[in-house]
Amino acid sequence: MTIRIYITGGTFDKEYNELKGELYFKATHLPEMLNLGRSRVSVDIETLMMIDSLEMTDTNRESIARHCLSAKENRIIITHGTDTMVDTARVIAGKVKDKTVILTGAMIPYKFGSSDGLFNLGSALAFVQTLPAGVYVAMNGRYFDWNNVQKNTTIGEFEEIR
Amino acid sequence: MTIRIYITGGTFDKEYNELKGELYFKATHLPEMLNLGRSRVSVDIETLMMIDSLEMTDTNRESIARHCLSAKENRIIITHGTDTMVDTARVIAGKVKDKTVILTGAMIPYKFGSSDGLFNLGSALAFVQTLPAGVYVAMNGRYFDWNNVQKNTTIGEFEEIR
Amino acid sequence: MTIRIYITGGTFDKEYNELKGELYFKATHLPEMLNLGRSRVSVDIETLMMIDSLEMTDTNRESIARHCLSAKENRIIITHGTDTMVDTARVIAGKVKDKTVILTGAMIPYKFGSSDGLFNLGSALAFVQTLPAGVYVAMNGRYFDWNNVQKNTTIGEFEEIR
Amino acid sequence: MTIRIYITGGTFDKEYNELKGELYFKATHLPEMLNLGRSRVSVDIETLMMIDSLEMTDTNRESIARHCLSAKENRIIITHGTDTMVDTARVIAGKVKDKTVILTGAMIPYKFGSSDGLFNLGSALAFVQTLPAGVYVAMNGRYFDWNNVQKNTTIGEFEEIR
Repeated sequence: MTIRIYITGGTFDKEYNELKGELYFKATHLPEMLNLGRSRVSVDIETLMMIDSLEMTDTNRESIARHCLSAKENRIIITHGTDTMVDTARVIAGKVKDKTVILTGAMIPYKFGSSDGLFNLGSALAFVQTLPAGVYVAMNGRYFDWNNVQKNTTIGEFEEIR
Repeated sequence: MTIRIYITGGTFDKEYNELKGELYFKATHLPEMLNLGRSRVSVDIETLMMIDSLEMTDTNRESIARHCLSAKENRIIITHGTDTMVDTARVIAGKVKDKTVILTGAMIPYKFGSSDGLFNLGSALAFVQTLPAGVYVAMNGRYFDWNNVQKNTTIGEFEEIR
Repeated sequence: MTIRIYITGGTFDKEYNELKGELYFKATHLPEMLNLGRSRVSVDIETLMMIDSLEMTDTNRESIARHCLSAKENRIIITHGTDTMVDTARVIAGKVKDKTVILTGAMIPYKFGSSDGLFNLGSALAFVQTLPAGVYVAMNGRYFDWNNVQKNTTIGEFEEIR
Repeated sequence: MTIRIYITGGTFDKEYNELKGELYFKATHLPEMLNLGRSRVSVDIETLMMIDSLEMTDTNRESIARHCLSAKENRIIITHGTDTMVDTARVIAGKVKDKTVILTGAMIPYKFGSSDGLFNLGSALAFVQTLPAGVYVAMNGRYFDWNNVQKNTTIGEFEEIR
């Protein structure tokens, strides 16, 4: 069983441009992170886009959903900015019915010392192997159904709506 | 649902004693790691022992199994040295039948820069929430049934026996 | 001999605001860094401002120079953003004649994994103890006289003008 | 001016062998550390030995001193275990009269998250550029004459003898 991992950007993969003093995207750190975790799960990583999730358009979300639909794998992880992760989950859930799709991200970039990224990736990889078909958000060590989750922007955590 | 976490030591929690130049155990880093991962899973952490798994005795393993048995929680994570993790899993499986027990550990101490510990903890926490009753080893992003896993000491990874 | 350390902000002390996804200033990391380096040099740390050096005004620079002048210590380190570090050095050199003043900074925030900050702080602390009265920039393991240094913004390094 | 750097081992360069669970030496991290510090000081690095300083013999110390003597550079840094750093400094001081020789080390291995190594390297590199001929120990942000320094093994810091 191979897991498909789609990269879309988000805090996860942001780096510090030392010449400009700005955060930016270069390339995904997923392979490096899986290597650090000594992961031996079979994965196929593909970068769909490399953007801040606040800049993600409907067209972007449709594209992600189409990729999930056409992927030959039935278990899919999507790395995504946390701000609109729930919106993308909804679009995917409208199209993809028989696959396990996990969206995950990070509050702190992986390249910064104190990132939650490695923890989230470990949990996402475990959830995608064990949860039944459905679209889920995996953050804070937990998993949430796509239609019962929101980001609490005051504290920077995900929670059930009801 | 609260997850019980039993600490037994292992590479996970080793630190560097700068006065003696040796590795040693002080206290568990689990709370710090869960905080770094921004985990919001309800957990109850208890340190049973703080030893290298090569020094773990039958008495130690019996004690761990008894704790699993008497815990009021049905979902349990055990942090453990990797060298004899499989032996302890076997002892627990002989006693505990109706709980989900996950043993996990690390190849590199958490306090060292490049540890796999945070990744493993993230995956263990996800597996314990989703797997049916049984005793499992969670390492390398994967989970293994207690009776079909071995540590390949040449490469430092876990694998199925058959 | 006590070393006076003036904090003015700069990349050195920038942190990542995980709720806003932006870099910002909270408090200086100098005490934490000196502790990590196990420094036993007697220092007195004072935060004069906490700003990006691109936003530093003439008034700010005058204030820094006045502080150097009125400090009872003869050996002073100033942490400063790299972009206008040379400009501030010039203002100080116009006022302060009989003290050893070292300006230093970092290309990568200390809180990010791969910062040059600890290295620069170590070298600045050594230079301030050994160089004769004068105003210097300490970056890249080297020291430069205030009137013969420029930041090469293409490569992010300091170099002699001639 | 090129600085000669001699590597002799010590905590500085220790790594964690994840298959054996032991600390060991592989190769020096000096080039990586200088790169992280964005050092632009011209250096020539040579590994003389890779040992724990408790295992260093008189023959080893004589060899280090001879290398200092025959080096074409007049400014030399030696990375060394802290336990017998002062002993080696004495042997060098008996032979080398007209060069600036700085011994430095670390209490925590560089590869572990919280090392003092980068700070010490930054200060050693600054001291070697600025101090007059002599043999010095550079630790804790300070420099000590070879004949007025001891390691306080209770607190793990260097201090004057009198």
